[in-house]
Amino acid sequence: MLPSSVIDSLRAIVGAEHVRTDSDSLIAYGTDALKRGAAADAVVLPADVDEVAAIATLCNEHRVPLVPRGAGTGYTGGSVPTRGGVVLSLERMNRILEIDEANLLAIVEPNVITGDLQDAVEKVGLFYPPDPASLRLCALGGNVAECAGGPRAFKYGTTKRYVLGLEAVLPTGEIVRTGGKTVKNVVGYDLTQLLVGSEGTLAIVTKIILRLVPRPAFQATLRATFGTIEAAVGAVVNITRARVVPAALELIDGESLEAVAQNLGVRSLAPAGTAALLLLDVDGVPAAVEEEAARVEQACRDAGATEVLRARDEAERAELWRVRRELSLSLKMVAALKFNHDVVVPKGRIPQLFELVARLRREFRLRIPSFGHAGDGNIHVNFMVDPGDADEVARARAAEPVLFAGVVALEGSISGEHGIGFVKAPFLPIELSADEIALMQRVKAAFDPNGILNPGKIFGDR
Amino acid sequence: MLPSSVIDSLRAIVGAEHVRTDSDSLIAYGTDALKRGAAADAVVLPADVDEVAAIATLCNEHRVPLVPRGAGTGYTGGSVPTRGGVVLSLERMNRILEIDEANLLAIVEPNVITGDLQDAVEKVGLFYPPDPASLRLCALGGNVAECAGGPRAFKYGTTKRYVLGLEAVLPTGEIVRTGGKTVKNVVGYDLTQLLVGSEGTLAIVTKIILRLVPRPAFQATLRATFGTIEAAVGAVVNITRARVVPAALELIDGESLEAVAQNLGVRSLAPAGTAALLLLDVDGVPAAVEEEAARVEQACRDAGATEVLRARDEAERAELWRVRRELSLSLKMVAALKFNHDVVVPKGRIPQLFELVARLRREFRLRIPSFGHAGDGNIHVNFMVDPGDADEVARARAAEPVLFAGVVALEGSISGEHGIGFVKAPFLPIELSADEIALMQRVKAAFDPNGILNPGKIFGDR
Repeated sequence: MLPSSVIDSLRAIVGAEHVRTDSDSLIAYGTDALKRGAAADAVVLPADVDEVAAIATLCNEHRVPLVPRGAGTGYTGGSVPTRGGVVLSLERMNRILEIDEANLLAIVEPNVITGDLQDAVEKVGLFYPPDPASLRLCALGGNVAECAGGPRAFKYGTTKRYVLGLEAVLPTGEIVRTGGKTVKNVVGYDLTQLLVGSEGTLAIVTKIILRLVPRPAFQATLRATFGTIEAAVGAVVNITRARVVPAALELIDGESLEAVAQNLGVRSLAPAGTAALLLLDVDGVPAAVEEEAARVEQACRDAGATEVLRARDEAERAELWRVRRELSLSLKMVAALKFNHDVVVPKGRIPQLFELVARLRREFRLRIPSFGHAGDGNIHVNFMVDPGDADEVARARAAEPVLFAGVVALEGSISGEHGIGFVKAPFLPIELSADEIALMQRVKAAFDPNGILNPGKIFGDR
Repeated sequence: MLPSSVIDSLRAIVGAEHVRTDSDSLIAYGTDALKRGAAADAVVLPADVDEVAAIATLCNEHRVPLVPRGAGTGYTGGSVPTRGGVVLSLERMNRILEIDEANLLAIVEPNVITGDLQDAVEKVGLFYPPDPASLRLCALGGNVAECAGGPRAFKYGTTKRYVLGLEAVLPTGEIVRTGGKTVKNVVGYDLTQLLVGSEGTLAIVTKIILRLVPRPAFQATLRATFGTIEAAVGAVVNITRARVVPAALELIDGESLEAVAQNLGVRSLAPAGTAALLLLDVDGVPAAVEEEAARVEQACRDAGATEVLRARDEAERAELWRVRRELSLSLKMVAALKFNHDVVVPKGRIPQLFELVARLRREFRLRIPSFGHAGDGNIHVNFMVDPGDADEVARARAAEPVLFAGVVALEGSISGEHGIGFVKAPFLPIELSADEIALMQRVKAAFDPNGILNPGKIFGDR
């Protein structure tokens, strides 16, 4: 429990109307997409960086856990106040401050919704590529905290490639600025890139300078169906050999295709019985798109595609991508609870990853629809379980370390997009050595000597 | 002076033939492209990571400064042993360990020459884009330490975008691995990106996993001449509006053009009297190159280019880029000593940067040929001085803080490519606040509690 003097101080900082201590709020602000929440002792909604700094200073003085929170769409509990304390919601800091066409950048507060920024910059001919499936719900601050990816990451890179600079509040209350308005900056350490993906454990981001690129003049979407996962991955290799870098290169397995077909009642992605689908975007100037689309089609046919189709118009393109984005939600047709693992392997090893998944299906008797970003080797491996079936839940829990150890044996990583949060903290030693974890903890201490900021995340209770 | 017991221990670790204490070696290994060296007490040439770890452990125990060194082509004294101690030359660790075509990556030891890796991967249809002007001399370990850039950074990004993982030795002797073989990895903090650009002050890199991309199928090179810098920058804006991202977008001022013309005896870049030149590459599949080249040409004409020419064949392309790479060396025609400043501003503010340079020319009576990477706003501003002219040297020194303060006022950065080393350490507070510098120093201490690794760099004698 918080001392009432701390609550009083919070009210003095942000105004009483921006401090919540009612149980509904404490519960609502204590969970994320994971749906495994915890209750904070108070929720505070600051209006600006100075209020954030005052809150941090207060919590640091009183050694109170401080948990920053954006839109709450994370999958690993990064914004869950597992040790109570104060949840700092950034929801009032939600303005696009500047779109600078001459310098190809945007400056935003952390709680701007990702899709809203995309819409705003596309209106002036610019482009913000990162496209997590939740882009209509998630906020840019959370994208920065988790280093969000998405289908376009293959060609365009993940969030980190677009963050040029940050304003952030340290857990000890100092306001710092990292990076700036230029793509190149080698003055001192790259704290910007260190903060991206640090899951709100090092600092509270209060302003983001984002790099933009010219909006591609033209796009085409292709889909190719295959009789096996191996054939689909063969097409990915052929595409590289044809020297094409598609804007998106998504692989969807048969079980996932079936789930989305049942849920939406459409089979626009692939005919029934398809074992593997590649969904591909190419973009650029029109002549480039035509040539690249032709090369992609040939690469898929050479790999034994059963069918290659190109979306005829913008409406058909939009429909394909709408269905793709519904994939994750559609899995609720398979089972009510999803253990959503965003593992990643070197892309040539995707067939071995699918062999591993097949083995887990057999040995642990699980339904595991899988799909993801083939160009990056980043596959969402979803253990679908009925929460009322204790044995199935236990089998899924038992399969998790086997999946992670298998991925690391393939020289992959246990998380490519969602981060560690508290959910995956127990598995950290599967991927990192004790020396590496100790080094990261010393870095954490350099930012947060009293360990108040988002405690228990990444490192768990170590 | 080192205790003789430390020298004996170094000999025991690497073999007596790989420890140098003769004065010729101490001088040769004590300088870089800056030509302001200092003598180490010993030079040691380890063969592998275990030897590097043993050397670090030894130096840490004895609190001896340890200075890692690659090819010694840096411009800011990053590999100069300003406090004596041990220089650790990585020259024996110079093998390309693996080129993995299926996974689009290469694994190298730190002293592989950048151009050699490029040649090797291009033979198998792949591409390593970063292209510092010194690419035939500089080593990838140094590229990582400084986050090297080059003309292709506009489209392809600097070194950091290509470093997927590192093996590194901490100053305390532990061997750590960061990142890995996948583009996506959000497990713990991004220590890979923290090490890139850390100027050898946090760890000694012993192995590098580099991302490769498909080699562009085709390229074209254009050059456009302009009557003013403003007109050239106007063309850069037009190119963005035309939704083209050139592979390279170089801006060269009249004074630099004159220097290279006199030095090489050719005017292949631009006719006499040209105020500003844009040198542009576009690359991709052939149809894309044709369309993008046409758009670039139109964008330059719309901005008032006096002449736009396209290289007719590969030989003409190669000649243009050869002359461009000779630019830096050609400045010796202007004066014997160069204060080479790699400042960067938001690209729309390049005209204001050139106004600042013009003011410095007048007020400090200096010759300042300037050229660089217009797409990134990264301009090499070269104060050319006669080292025998004490007054001119003093004027150049006096102009430096004015340049840096002006660049920061334009929301730029005092270094976009060369880093801080010891040469620019006094200017760090022009760009970073005391809180920011203190935070970086706490990060440094998290890696190097005894401050033995490359001391005096970035932070100077703070």
